[in-house]
Amino acid sequence: MEINKELSYRAAEVDRVIYSYLPSDQHGYQKIVMEAMNYSVLAGGKRIRPILMLETYKLFGGSSKAIEPFMAAIEMIHTYSLVHDDLPAMDNDMLRRGKPTTHAKYGEAIGILAGDGLLNYAFETALQALDIEPDNKAVYKSLQVLAKKSGIYGMIGGQVVDIEADKQYGISKNRLDFIYELKTGALIEAAMMIGAYLGGATQDEVDQIEQMAKKIGLAFQIQDDILDVVGDEAKLGKTVGSDAKNQKATYVVFEGLDKAKDDVEKLTEDAIKILIDFPYENIFLEKLIMWLVMRDK
Amino acid sequence: MEINKELSYRAAEVDRVIYSYLPSDQHGYQKIVMEAMNYSVLAGGKRIRPILMLETYKLFGGSSKAIEPFMAAIEMIHTYSLVHDDLPAMDNDMLRRGKPTTHAKYGEAIGILAGDGLLNYAFETALQALDIEPDNKAVYKSLQVLAKKSGIYGMIGGQVVDIEADKQYGISKNRLDFIYELKTGALIEAAMMIGAYLGGATQDEVDQIEQMAKKIGLAFQIQDDILDVVGDEAKLGKTVGSDAKNQKATYVVFEGLDKAKDDVEKLTEDAIKILIDFPYENIFLEKLIMWLVMRDK
Repeated sequence: MEINKELSYRAAEVDRVIYSYLPSDQHGYQKIVMEAMNYSVLAGGKRIRPILMLETYKLFGGSSKAIEPFMAAIEMIHTYSLVHDDLPAMDNDMLRRGKPTTHAKYGEAIGILAGDGLLNYAFETALQALDIEPDNKAVYKSLQVLAKKSGIYGMIGGQVVDIEADKQYGISKNRLDFIYELKTGALIEAAMMIGAYLGGATQDEVDQIEQMAKKIGLAFQIQDDILDVVGDEAKLGKTVGSDAKNQKATYVVFEGLDKAKDDVEKLTEDAIKILIDFPYENIFLEKLIMWLVMRDK
Repeated sequence: MEINKELSYRAAEVDRVIYSYLPSDQHGYQKIVMEAMNYSVLAGGKRIRPILMLETYKLFGGSSKAIEPFMAAIEMIHTYSLVHDDLPAMDNDMLRRGKPTTHAKYGEAIGILAGDGLLNYAFETALQALDIEPDNKAVYKSLQVLAKKSGIYGMIGGQVVDIEADKQYGISKNRLDFIYELKTGALIEAAMMIGAYLGGATQDEVDQIEQMAKKIGLAFQIQDDILDVVGDEAKLGKTVGSDAKNQKATYVVFEGLDKAKDDVEKLTEDAIKILIDFPYENIFLEKLIMWLVMRDK
């Protein structure tokens, strides 16, 4: 499929940017933590967040290097969240994408510290943008959005409620919506908002982008739930129906499969409508959004 | 003792600043993590890092509000490092300052997430300084120093080597120096360097402050080791000789008690010499440094 090929090509480009910002000093006494950090990031992934950031940046005509440290930073934050999610006290996962998780490979203490290291290094990296464009106030906004959407009012907040839902409360539909919006949505919002800010968007335009990203994040997460029920096991690389087996409440459980599919379609339409209403165009971004939410793996 | 009283007074002032920057929304689904974060910070401590920051700021004549988010941020970073240090996979401590540690009180998952939340919130907080003094490049430098000294080339790096030393390698004197310099020293350096930058110090002066802070950090840590051997149990609030019982390699073990005491004195003299060579004066800072490294608890 055309978009898959194009996406692999973009992911390889993005990988080169991310790799260039990873810590490279392998001689200090603390090299084991850098090894674990790099292992986690290099384990792969679709690089959706930095790609969405870059394409939103291009939508608004951005063309400087200031976007690069932010692309690396958001992938570091996404990666640290997976590393800590996989810990024994959290989801206790030993495998991710067919490879040992970071704590499975390096031990639990280094798993914790590699996650801390990645979160801290994400800010260390993003702050380099202040040197690249020292007089661009959009860099300030981008740093602040990155911090807010990653934290307790963003991704960490969603993760807390997800963990608590598993362990104590059962879950209401409102609580599920909260988790989806924060745990999955917040970083997608951050990615696209930062792309917009640095690309030169006005605050009004950034607000539009935030609304669009919110819909994309939600559709992306619902599609994940749908694929868990109907997906082809080989394509997904995980056991289909694992959410149901784990008795995990999902959007599909609350709304049924048909309504879930309708909602993905509606959310995607709404997101695309916002996108094409801008007086700028990015055809690849349109295709990417369609693929993200209509994908079969 | 005069200095103890003065220090309590300053700590109370600093506490008011820190509290004003803690998350206060207690209504979201994720409120449990804010509760755990606030619990960890409010559990107390000497607030040495923000006090050193503020006093170095005053040394260079600083007098704006831009210092406040950094004072709160460095205490959040110090606190998160303790929260993660106490986790079962790390030091497995159930009590700190006579109170249950964060994971003992809230469970291990929330312990991990509260630590992540504090680290992230520290940057969220410090980044507010960009709004307070938007055209002050010293804010850039301060943000970058905060990130670097907290990360894998600073505090986290020291923590990694400390953990590895416990578990695998035994320890050499070089490795011990590395741990002391990074795990204890890095945040003290960051505190004083940020105070200097924001106070208007030149890069040369900041470099001097960094050297001074390095000596203070090292003397502070050696004094800790000395107190563990000779301290009065009631004053310290912990079992004297616990390092020896845990077979922990310390400066005193390597160098002997007399050399350790001499070195604390020498490092302190050198630090004070750097301080009084500046064409500015801060008498309280001098007394504070003397107290920090000569303290009996």
